[in-house]
Amino acid sequence: MPPPPAFRFEALLVGDRWEPDVRMEVDAAGRIASLSPGSPDAACEQVCGWTVPGVPNLHSHAFQRALAGLAEADGPDSFWSWREVMYRLAALPGPDEVEAIALQLYVELLKAGFTCVGEFHYLHHPPGGGRYADPAEMSRRIVRAAEKAGIGLVHMPVVYENAGLGGEPLTGSQRRFRLDLDEALRIRADLADVCGGAGCGLGLALHSVRAVRPATFRRIFENPCAAGSPMHIHVAEQEREVRECLAQRGARPVQWLLDHAPVDQGWCLVHATHMTGAEAAAVAARGAVVGLCPTTEANLGDGLFPLGALVRAGGRFGIGTDSHVSRSPVEELRLLDYGQRLAARARSVPRTGPDRTRNGALAGAGGALLAHAWENGCRALAWDGGTVAVGRRADLAVLDAGHPALAGRRGHAVLDSWVFSGTESPVRDVMVAGDWVVRDRRHMCEEGAARGYAAAVDGLIQPGGR
Amino acid sequence: MPPPPAFRFEALLVGDRWEPDVRMEVDAAGRIASLSPGSPDAACEQVCGWTVPGVPNLHSHAFQRALAGLAEADGPDSFWSWREVMYRLAALPGPDEVEAIALQLYVELLKAGFTCVGEFHYLHHPPGGGRYADPAEMSRRIVRAAEKAGIGLVHMPVVYENAGLGGEPLTGSQRRFRLDLDEALRIRADLADVCGGAGCGLGLALHSVRAVRPATFRRIFENPCAAGSPMHIHVAEQEREVRECLAQRGARPVQWLLDHAPVDQGWCLVHATHMTGAEAAAVAARGAVVGLCPTTEANLGDGLFPLGALVRAGGRFGIGTDSHVSRSPVEELRLLDYGQRLAARARSVPRTGPDRTRNGALAGAGGALLAHAWENGCRALAWDGGTVAVGRRADLAVLDAGHPALAGRRGHAVLDSWVFSGTESPVRDVMVAGDWVVRDRRHMCEEGAARGYAAAVDGLIQPGGR
Repeated sequence: MPPPPAFRFEALLVGDRWEPDVRMEVDAAGRIASLSPGSPDAACEQVCGWTVPGVPNLHSHAFQRALAGLAEADGPDSFWSWREVMYRLAALPGPDEVEAIALQLYVELLKAGFTCVGEFHYLHHPPGGGRYADPAEMSRRIVRAAEKAGIGLVHMPVVYENAGLGGEPLTGSQRRFRLDLDEALRIRADLADVCGGAGCGLGLALHSVRAVRPATFRRIFENPCAAGSPMHIHVAEQEREVRECLAQRGARPVQWLLDHAPVDQGWCLVHATHMTGAEAAAVAARGAVVGLCPTTEANLGDGLFPLGALVRAGGRFGIGTDSHVSRSPVEELRLLDYGQRLAARARSVPRTGPDRTRNGALAGAGGALLAHAWENGCRALAWDGGTVAVGRRADLAVLDAGHPALAGRRGHAVLDSWVFSGTESPVRDVMVAGDWVVRDRRHMCEEGAARGYAAAVDGLIQPGGR
Repeated sequence: MPPPPAFRFEALLVGDRWEPDVRMEVDAAGRIASLSPGSPDAACEQVCGWTVPGVPNLHSHAFQRALAGLAEADGPDSFWSWREVMYRLAALPGPDEVEAIALQLYVELLKAGFTCVGEFHYLHHPPGGGRYADPAEMSRRIVRAAEKAGIGLVHMPVVYENAGLGGEPLTGSQRRFRLDLDEALRIRADLADVCGGAGCGLGLALHSVRAVRPATFRRIFENPCAAGSPMHIHVAEQEREVRECLAQRGARPVQWLLDHAPVDQGWCLVHATHMTGAEAAAVAARGAVVGLCPTTEANLGDGLFPLGALVRAGGRFGIGTDSHVSRSPVEELRLLDYGQRLAARARSVPRTGPDRTRNGALAGAGGALLAHAWENGCRALAWDGGTVAVGRRADLAVLDAGHPALAGRRGHAVLDSWVFSGTESPVRDVMVAGDWVVRDRRHMCEEGAARGYAAAVDGLIQPGGR
């Protein structure tokens, strides 16, 4: 057997410190087998630059990548009219198109520094209705796209039952999404052959309080079928949802969820935009992660997340790219912080909870934000990355120290400048489970992915006039 | 004499329409000499993709490029503590460093699709005090950096007299900025040898209501010395400035300015964040442009600009990158719109005034925002670009139709997707005054600019621990 791959990193973020000249061995499962700072080993692969953990992306609907920029009317428009445009697109792609769109997305995510993605997958059935011979067909295409791209995947089939809180039947465009809990569990079991390995985890998702029957929440409460694997749900994204839930269930959606589901540290509450201070404290006390998707939440006019209430209560948040109007971890974090600054009319906004301080490389605003994304994104996905330590996955992103965004930066200014200095990305190389998937800014299959994506999108979008 | 350069554009934005196969001739002054849509000419240079006017950047402090990401403390922090960090940096660079920093910035601006920049220049004197033998030394370095980069420049020496509204003397770190109106006019006159041509315009700037004496405003009111050339001023960026102005002058800063200066369509009011509805209507009635710098205003926690009040009054705004935490026109416009959407909890926010509708390629949110930036940025800089028409400057940006951000996009979705679909830029080529300065994503001197910038910044920033 050949010796395990070894690398020497010029500067590696270990905990909250930049350690110089760290030799790292990676085992056959893609995990860090050893770490030796200050190593003189010049024979192994030398990695220049500032190397950080890859960022987990905790919330993605891959097919929506094709929609980014297509639903930007200048005129009467809302989340709900956006949803109609999204439904029209969602009605179209078959398995080949979804795989092509997901592959392009995953290549883009990797190039930006994400190394794993949680897929909140609800495009289950064929366009126009019916069932695939293999009910897991569409899920398998997502898994295949992730394998081709080389990104870590946590696949979460989504339970989707109702059109609304009153148990209204699904509309025509929602029929592709229909899945009850038993079907979702069956798809999950079916995927065990492709998702058992290190590169692919499995979770489960409930679309939302409005789209899942109370009886299903009861079943999960009595028998937490997803124990040990991630459980994700959209909640309180729009004010209308809050009003309807108050009217029909007598509680706000986050409170209703906490009362009717075994929400704990295995859960991720996606958006939770319209959460009260009391709800934020209760979510923090349960140890659940809030899944923020700042660019999507801004794009859809959801509203500003009450970050101060959550972090003051010691709560946890990670980030996702959701509808993929951005595919960059730092644009998500930058917009999250800028929203808070604009609303507070201040630069000093809450980022770090009362129970901890950030030091060293994490002492600035950029590091504080990234620390949440690394730690809590991995918690939300039950993903063994997000930090450099023996036994963890070797999921890493290398920032080019020679990039103008990082010129002269040291200490915490490296991460601050990555997050806050503009849109040119300094991410040069990306490693997933010990394998380089992006080298010198190029993904190994980016040309093919872009060609396949363009062909798929051209086929979906009706030709319009110029 | 050789024939004038000619190009055929696959798709060119003319007014609000994508015109196919447009042949364009450019005269010796870099202006559009002819436009022929539907041309069969296959012999001239063929330009594939979606070609749009280059975007004017109406507000820049070039030296602050070196600061982006360096002042991001996670803890007590404010505009005013940021300003102290900025002053420490501003105290350091000499002419060579400023030229190197500006060159890097201008290369980055061009690559992102900006084709001219308004430089609000207040770093007049040597580090530590005294005067350069040539009082225009620092201005000349800015002009030289713009020439090297090939970006259009409107240079505006800044009058800077006081530390505050009470006429307080300048502090040590502000002494490099000190310039009275006569000195500013003299620098402007001195620069006539290098700024007379097509590539460099001249304007004048007043730092702010707080840093310029009332007597100077009176002189300008009585004798509008800058008539016909741009006059720029920072105003109402921070709430503290509004409170102090109310306390000391009995009026909010925008109102005070309207009462004490000949504000008209030659003026640009930069920021104007804390403007009342009545002030917005008055500014609109004067025809002045509001210079918005969304990423800087968010980064500094200034507050959210009341865009609805301005556009409903028929007012005008353009965009600038100011402190250069972003160097992208579309990130500025995206953040401007996202801030409005987050505050309104809506996707439908005011973008277009009551007097007009946007059609064709400008019918979406992206096009509506770009239309303001093109038209009013050029108005604020007295720059003859921003639209494709015979007699205008041939300042253009070519969007790569093969870029995944634009896959399948047609009509207004092209501009919407440029603005709203993430951070990977589809800008492939950039032309300034008929000359290509960016080809296939590379600026002709980007390596040298980056090396010079890194050396300058390394020399300025004290080595810190890791």
